[in-house]
Amino acid sequence: MQTITTNLVQNTIKRRPANSHKGDYGRVMLIGGNDQFGGAIIMAATAAVYSGAGLVTVATAPSNFASLHARLPEAMIVDYRATTTLLALLPKMDVVVIGPGLGTDVVAQGCLTAALSTLQAPQRLVIDGSALTLLAADPQALPDLPIVVTPHQMEWQRLSGIPIAEQTPAANQRAQQKLGVVAVVKAHHTTVYTDQQAWRNPGGTPAMATGGMGDTLAGMVGGFVAQFTDFTNAILSAVYLHSAIADDLARTRYVVLPTQISAALPAYMHRMSVAQD
Amino acid sequence: MQTITTNLVQNTIKRRPANSHKGDYGRVMLIGGNDQFGGAIIMAATAAVYSGAGLVTVATAPSNFASLHARLPEAMIVDYRATTTLLALLPKMDVVVIGPGLGTDVVAQGCLTAALSTLQAPQRLVIDGSALTLLAADPQALPDLPIVVTPHQMEWQRLSGIPIAEQTPAANQRAQQKLGVVAVVKAHHTTVYTDQQAWRNPGGTPAMATGGMGDTLAGMVGGFVAQFTDFTNAILSAVYLHSAIADDLARTRYVVLPTQISAALPAYMHRMSVAQD
Amino acid sequence: MQTITTNLVQNTIKRRPANSHKGDYGRVMLIGGNDQFGGAIIMAATAAVYSGAGLVTVATAPSNFASLHARLPEAMIVDYRATTTLLALLPKMDVVVIGPGLGTDVVAQGCLTAALSTLQAPQRLVIDGSALTLLAADPQALPDLPIVVTPHQMEWQRLSGIPIAEQTPAANQRAQQKLGVVAVVKAHHTTVYTDQQAWRNPGGTPAMATGGMGDTLAGMVGGFVAQFTDFTNAILSAVYLHSAIADDLARTRYVVLPTQISAALPAYMHRMSVAQD
Amino acid sequence: MQTITTNLVQNTIKRRPANSHKGDYGRVMLIGGNDQFGGAIIMAATAAVYSGAGLVTVATAPSNFASLHARLPEAMIVDYRATTTLLALLPKMDVVVIGPGLGTDVVAQGCLTAALSTLQAPQRLVIDGSALTLLAADPQALPDLPIVVTPHQMEWQRLSGIPIAEQTPAANQRAQQKLGVVAVVKAHHTTVYTDQQAWRNPGGTPAMATGGMGDTLAGMVGGFVAQFTDFTNAILSAVYLHSAIADDLARTRYVVLPTQISAALPAYMHRMSVAQD
Repeated sequence: MQTITTNLVQNTIKRRPANSHKGDYGRVMLIGGNDQFGGAIIMAATAAVYSGAGLVTVATAPSNFASLHARLPEAMIVDYRATTTLLALLPKMDVVVIGPGLGTDVVAQGCLTAALSTLQAPQRLVIDGSALTLLAADPQALPDLPIVVTPHQMEWQRLSGIPIAEQTPAANQRAQQKLGVVAVVKAHHTTVYTDQQAWRNPGGTPAMATGGMGDTLAGMVGGFVAQFTDFTNAILSAVYLHSAIADDLARTRYVVLPTQISAALPAYMHRMSVAQD
Repeated sequence: MQTITTNLVQNTIKRRPANSHKGDYGRVMLIGGNDQFGGAIIMAATAAVYSGAGLVTVATAPSNFASLHARLPEAMIVDYRATTTLLALLPKMDVVVIGPGLGTDVVAQGCLTAALSTLQAPQRLVIDGSALTLLAADPQALPDLPIVVTPHQMEWQRLSGIPIAEQTPAANQRAQQKLGVVAVVKAHHTTVYTDQQAWRNPGGTPAMATGGMGDTLAGMVGGFVAQFTDFTNAILSAVYLHSAIADDLARTRYVVLPTQISAALPAYMHRMSVAQD
Repeated sequence: MQTITTNLVQNTIKRRPANSHKGDYGRVMLIGGNDQFGGAIIMAATAAVYSGAGLVTVATAPSNFASLHARLPEAMIVDYRATTTLLALLPKMDVVVIGPGLGTDVVAQGCLTAALSTLQAPQRLVIDGSALTLLAADPQALPDLPIVVTPHQMEWQRLSGIPIAEQTPAANQRAQQKLGVVAVVKAHHTTVYTDQQAWRNPGGTPAMATGGMGDTLAGMVGGFVAQFTDFTNAILSAVYLHSAIADDLARTRYVVLPTQISAALPAYMHRMSVAQD
Repeated sequence: MQTITTNLVQNTIKRRPANSHKGDYGRVMLIGGNDQFGGAIIMAATAAVYSGAGLVTVATAPSNFASLHARLPEAMIVDYRATTTLLALLPKMDVVVIGPGLGTDVVAQGCLTAALSTLQAPQRLVIDGSALTLLAADPQALPDLPIVVTPHQMEWQRLSGIPIAEQTPAANQRAQQKLGVVAVVKAHHTTVYTDQQAWRNPGGTPAMATGGMGDTLAGMVGGFVAQFTDFTNAILSAVYLHSAIADDLARTRYVVLPTQISAALPAYMHRMSVAQD
């Protein structure tokens, strides 16, 4: 297993070419946030915007509209129950993130089905949170496009069938190959499994042990794969920077809040992009 | 009566073990916030999140959903009138804080009954604000689990039957023993009564004399008892830090707002956790 | 005409006695904010809270509930159309501020009538904005208690009958004596008229020429008369500090936003309170 | 083609005269923000307020009321579907900005028709975003008053009929003369076409390639033409400062968020106003 290096991240987060525009940095849709878990999609969308995604649309429950715009006017909003609208918008997206705070009810199932049945390569898909639970409960064929799943250990158990205690690198790698997707297995030291290789994230602090960290990572992964061409390196860079920022902030904080990581993203990404000047 | 010391707080707020996760820092539910007093539960929940509770759920009136999420996406939300949902969630919690802005109507009574009839050791319960008024008006058997009440002097009068002018340490101690709960009697210098001992909080400033301070303390107590094993020391540490931060902020402010204390919590807790390195 | 001095303000904003509580700093109700002008009451309430009022309640249109709490959880909220609730709460207040964003419809008239018919000395009343327009259109007997009006020049014309061009100190003073209230006539250099004397505010900057400044002043006046015993000096201190802070902020800003003044209040009030140590 | 100079901006953003009031800095109405694109009008209105417009009113969908006030209490709000109210307010405005997040449905069309049929010189009009799309789809006579359009290249193609690849300065200038309005054609280096001349904006950074930048520029243009007499210079100064601030912020940020530009406006405008002291 290789360790993700600062160098890999610096080679991924490149300086933007001068004559580029928001279309070059991706159209990202995040789907999630039911009445109970609206904060999750707010945090995920915040991470996507602050990581530099060009255009961000959030499909969520109407009860989250006001709070989402109050925090993040940069995002556009659609009702996640409006299937026709969703089906019209999905083909226009470069990246879809589904799952943060989505829940597992019939609306959630409808959203997941809409995404899985509509998206086509070269569109990219990030599956997180409740969408993984739905997928584990009702396994279905995944479309043939770059997909990354971001389970914590219990969600990975549900998805891969491997009990937490048996989630060794070798077992995880076999499950990844069966699923055919990049798997980000979140733990104290997160591991990432691709077809080629397994990666270990060097960072991570117990100050991150608070609700919303995973939602923020999912949003970052969405924002990164929307901007950086190499799918694996984009994912690895998001995983790395998420905990590297937290490690830094934890030097002076007992707990690091997810939105503090997002707020720090533009400065950290800038530093990575100029490190090799 | 003993004085709470910095040393006690430093011994309570320990460095987090590296390989820990949000489940280790507690599931906390805060119940309160009717249509009129929604700010109280927002401030309490903010204090719980910023003190490092692992997962925070707020049961409140729907009129508070948007403002709560706009300020605190880290919290999950349920309708405090949805009794079935509440009864399903309560057994999963490590700590319940009931009272900030709860009011005393039939919904409030239903919430209090749900909490008192459902919770079991080793769950922990913080009773604050209107929930104390309800309890005083209609005394009922408290469940056998670690409970802390956080009355101001008038609420303590209602609950203990001791008029404010007669709230001496000795009288308060006798009332505590009758009630069988830890009592945090809020005043210029707050006193804390346990079965073993009475404690005096050294801090406190008139810059704290503004609405929401008590709600913030209740949320901190909830967050602290969710993380730190020793129930009494967790409570004493929350009481101490709440006013110690306010004392510091008041060096440059005529009035200290409750949310400013919450915002400062992660840094102050960090300092406590590393003081003895 | 005398000029308000820093010394007067320093003698008014005294250090708080150590053993005081929020009841000592006043219960303030602010009434205003219809569907169109909700921001006005949000800004006024913010100023009242940040100036140190003990407990702040806002009576406003329900469309403003979520945004008010999202910005200011410290405030309590009631529906300004709920006459019975208003009539029950008004007698419990120390200070009432009526007018910011109130509008002039039948609900607004009902609120003004409720305030004028209910309040009694030693309660104090601040009349601002649309409430002044209502009063000018339908003059009615004012209750016998300390009242301050805070018109801009056009509102003062409506209220006093003096055309703007003829608003000389002498004319204003005569109108003040006829009305029997303290009059704060807002202009580049605001003037304040009491039974005893006329005062000129030395501060003021064109960077304050933006919507919401008057609402912020009304909230500050409410907060100050709730805390400081001398009615006139409390008003003069609010007027002085409102523009003194703006003058300072304008050293580096082309426009000063009203909420920036409120945010700076606790620090400026602290400096005033310790200046004579 | 001339380049916009710092000197031009410094000569435009003059020190405010001491004895001025908010009426001198313009009444600005911004019309836009449907249910899906509410963030656009929030960002545009924020830019107008922070650029120093005297009084700002936002006509938008009711679903945006709470979030707009939560972020920007300085703005007044009306329902953009309330045609009678709109028609009553429009004649009182100095400047109208129409388009950010407006959409192209029947309500949007009604708003555009209301503006085009009501406004008269010396009122000023900024047409942006969806309003340009509407105008291109259904060309109609523009009223005879100072008008500026702020299309990105695709919107300019729709409006002028010139394909993006053929949008040369000469072709753009011819289209401008046919339309008879000032045209701000947004690109990496934005160009501005007036009857007299073509201007090139020297600034611009790929860190601006994120949703909401155009909405922020439209709000700034509205705020600037409300305050500064020379219509062309006001527009050029807004264009210049928008990217000059972004260039500065991008020294330490990988992506610059639109609201960060607005937050920085008062300080940058101050510096321009005193540069020639």
